[in-house]
Amino acid sequence: MRASMVLYVSDMLDTRATWLTDDELQSARQRLPIVYVDAVPVRVDGTGQVVSVGLLLRGMPDGSISRAIVSGRVLYGERIRDALLRHIEKDLGGLALPSVPASPQPFSVVEYFPSPEVTGFHDPRQHAVALAFIVPVRGDCAPSQDSLDLVWVTPDEATAPEFQSEMTGGQGRLVRMALAHCGLLA
Amino acid sequence: MRASMVLYVSDMLDTRATWLTDDELQSARQRLPIVYVDAVPVRVDGTGQVVSVGLLLRGMPDGSISRAIVSGRVLYGERIRDALLRHIEKDLGGLALPSVPASPQPFSVVEYFPSPEVTGFHDPRQHAVALAFIVPVRGDCAPSQDSLDLVWVTPDEATAPEFQSEMTGGQGRLVRMALAHCGLLA
Amino acid sequence: MRASMVLYVSDMLDTRATWLTDDELQSARQRLPIVYVDAVPVRVDGTGQVVSVGLLLRGMPDGSISRAIVSGRVLYGERIRDALLRHIEKDLGGLALPSVPASPQPFSVVEYFPSPEVTGFHDPRQHAVALAFIVPVRGDCAPSQDSLDLVWVTPDEATAPEFQSEMTGGQGRLVRMALAHCGLLA
Amino acid sequence: MRASMVLYVSDMLDTRATWLTDDELQSARQRLPIVYVDAVPVRVDGTGQVVSVGLLLRGMPDGSISRAIVSGRVLYGERIRDALLRHIEKDLGGLALPSVPASPQPFSVVEYFPSPEVTGFHDPRQHAVALAFIVPVRGDCAPSQDSLDLVWVTPDEATAPEFQSEMTGGQGRLVRMALAHCGLLA
Repeated sequence: MRASMVLYVSDMLDTRATWLTDDELQSARQRLPIVYVDAVPVRVDGTGQVVSVGLLLRGMPDGSISRAIVSGRVLYGERIRDALLRHIEKDLGGLALPSVPASPQPFSVVEYFPSPEVTGFHDPRQHAVALAFIVPVRGDCAPSQDSLDLVWVTPDEATAPEFQSEMTGGQGRLVRMALAHCGLLA
Repeated sequence: MRASMVLYVSDMLDTRATWLTDDELQSARQRLPIVYVDAVPVRVDGTGQVVSVGLLLRGMPDGSISRAIVSGRVLYGERIRDALLRHIEKDLGGLALPSVPASPQPFSVVEYFPSPEVTGFHDPRQHAVALAFIVPVRGDCAPSQDSLDLVWVTPDEATAPEFQSEMTGGQGRLVRMALAHCGLLA
Repeated sequence: MRASMVLYVSDMLDTRATWLTDDELQSARQRLPIVYVDAVPVRVDGTGQVVSVGLLLRGMPDGSISRAIVSGRVLYGERIRDALLRHIEKDLGGLALPSVPASPQPFSVVEYFPSPEVTGFHDPRQHAVALAFIVPVRGDCAPSQDSLDLVWVTPDEATAPEFQSEMTGGQGRLVRMALAHCGLLA
Repeated sequence: MRASMVLYVSDMLDTRATWLTDDELQSARQRLPIVYVDAVPVRVDGTGQVVSVGLLLRGMPDGSISRAIVSGRVLYGERIRDALLRHIEKDLGGLALPSVPASPQPFSVVEYFPSPEVTGFHDPRQHAVALAFIVPVRGDCAPSQDSLDLVWVTPDEATAPEFQSEMTGGQGRLVRMALAHCGLLA
């Protein structure tokens, strides 16, 4: 078996077959909603207030190179908080020191559909249901793996047309929803 | 394909193949987390305060006949709020007049695992990620389809040992979490 | 009548007895944060999704005549849900049939300060801490008492410059925060 | 300078200037609901999951010496997050390294009344409306000022009769509500 066919389960809790080949994943994506986590990485000041938002630059499902937040699939047998940590490490590196929230209550649930008309959140590959969290990071972040770049912008910059126009599939809206949840929507 | 093999999509938003045979669902359940909705049906007074909780009696995944809240799978292409309505209608009948919340933010996210040790929420069939909502109903409710019975109990009764001991897989805990969210945990 | 002789009735629906003379309230407002409730009145469709937002036209603390949501003080001895009902009845009339949420968890907490610079939420009279809720109404609404007008606008209209520019003190931002919480920020 | 003339500085971290003499505060407490913050201090593991809850031992409003969480008044002109920091420092010392949440949305709002019958949350001195937050702390904590002791207990211990029976005024219930919000109610 090639390593590339095995999707790693970071904290595997079951010894049965927990992986999918690319073909199987492709097939499942056309038949079942897929569980995702979306994490808006932020830096906070000493009072916990958000001072900047981390925006990646990456290839997106729609084929564009766009600004984006951390996002990824929850694997079979994986806790949501482990999936958050895994995707944050994958996108921001291993020294980001994220503070995953103590509560499993997300600030929103984002429904991505293959059609852009249903909710405005769009993923041409699949129907994904993403639990969206705001995740403060305290450490050093560096774009890793699939990401080309990472910038930290103020809440005002993140909601300004310059960056909003660089986000696709509803990611710009999700960033504004996260800031609204923090009381910081301009 | 026999009609009985087709899972109905209540508000289908895509014309591609959106169904799974029983075998395919069985297989997916051992490879992917499945998106669920859990709905705690409540009756509220004129101020919105919960006065009673609806508890079904039904066959559960663990083989027991137990008290339970409304719960079910989200289908491919289905909005979360449509899945909530579909399962409430399935379990409480078509005259329940549910008020599905305006916000997609669930009060909690429940992670059911095949092993009872991971989170305490247990489903021997699958790894399910359930978005949990409190849903006030104003109409007439009657147990339908798979449910054998429906009782309305006060918040105090719902958290008392008599009913808690009749709930399995973490459902008793979920009811207490819902009441805690309403400020009504005894 | 001495203030200490006034018995508060928890389900009181008018503002006659407030425990405080105007002078005393004036004085308290310069010494203590005042507890408020903010209610964004919405109409929802059969799936619970917001289809329109109710905007009042009224005289505001800053002296302007502006669009506004339902807002008011919580009285001594009054439950938050009773205060919500009282202010909704005061602003939308007695036939609005509001559904006050079952949970006391607000979608946000808004901090109004006499200085517009602290949070952007501004009330020249006082430091107010407002618990903000989205409240679906099913009945007939009519502007009453202090309100001059009431319009129902779509989520897109509510966030468009036309109506946003008619709201002061941060009310336009609060409406956008409410819609963001409902997943409907444009 | 008289206390009433003292201007509050928003980032002030001690309790010296409170805008109100003791008499004035006493009077206000019988006429207005008072804004409070309640903070449940927790320690979390690397995945953000709560592993222990901090319980103080202190003199309570009802005259008892009881286990309690961090709690205190929000001052005129003070941001909620500044009040949280101030009370955490007052109760746990200046080296606690608290992570105040990025969002102002509390996990619950607790209504304390002079009568124990209204909500079960009881404060004989006043009607207080407390915004309740779960606050992870990473540093060294030591009971300070009014607190006699501080213990860290597991979620299971915190909800067990031994500690629940040592909490009055609804504090035991609030701890269970916090743990329910974290998905950890036993």
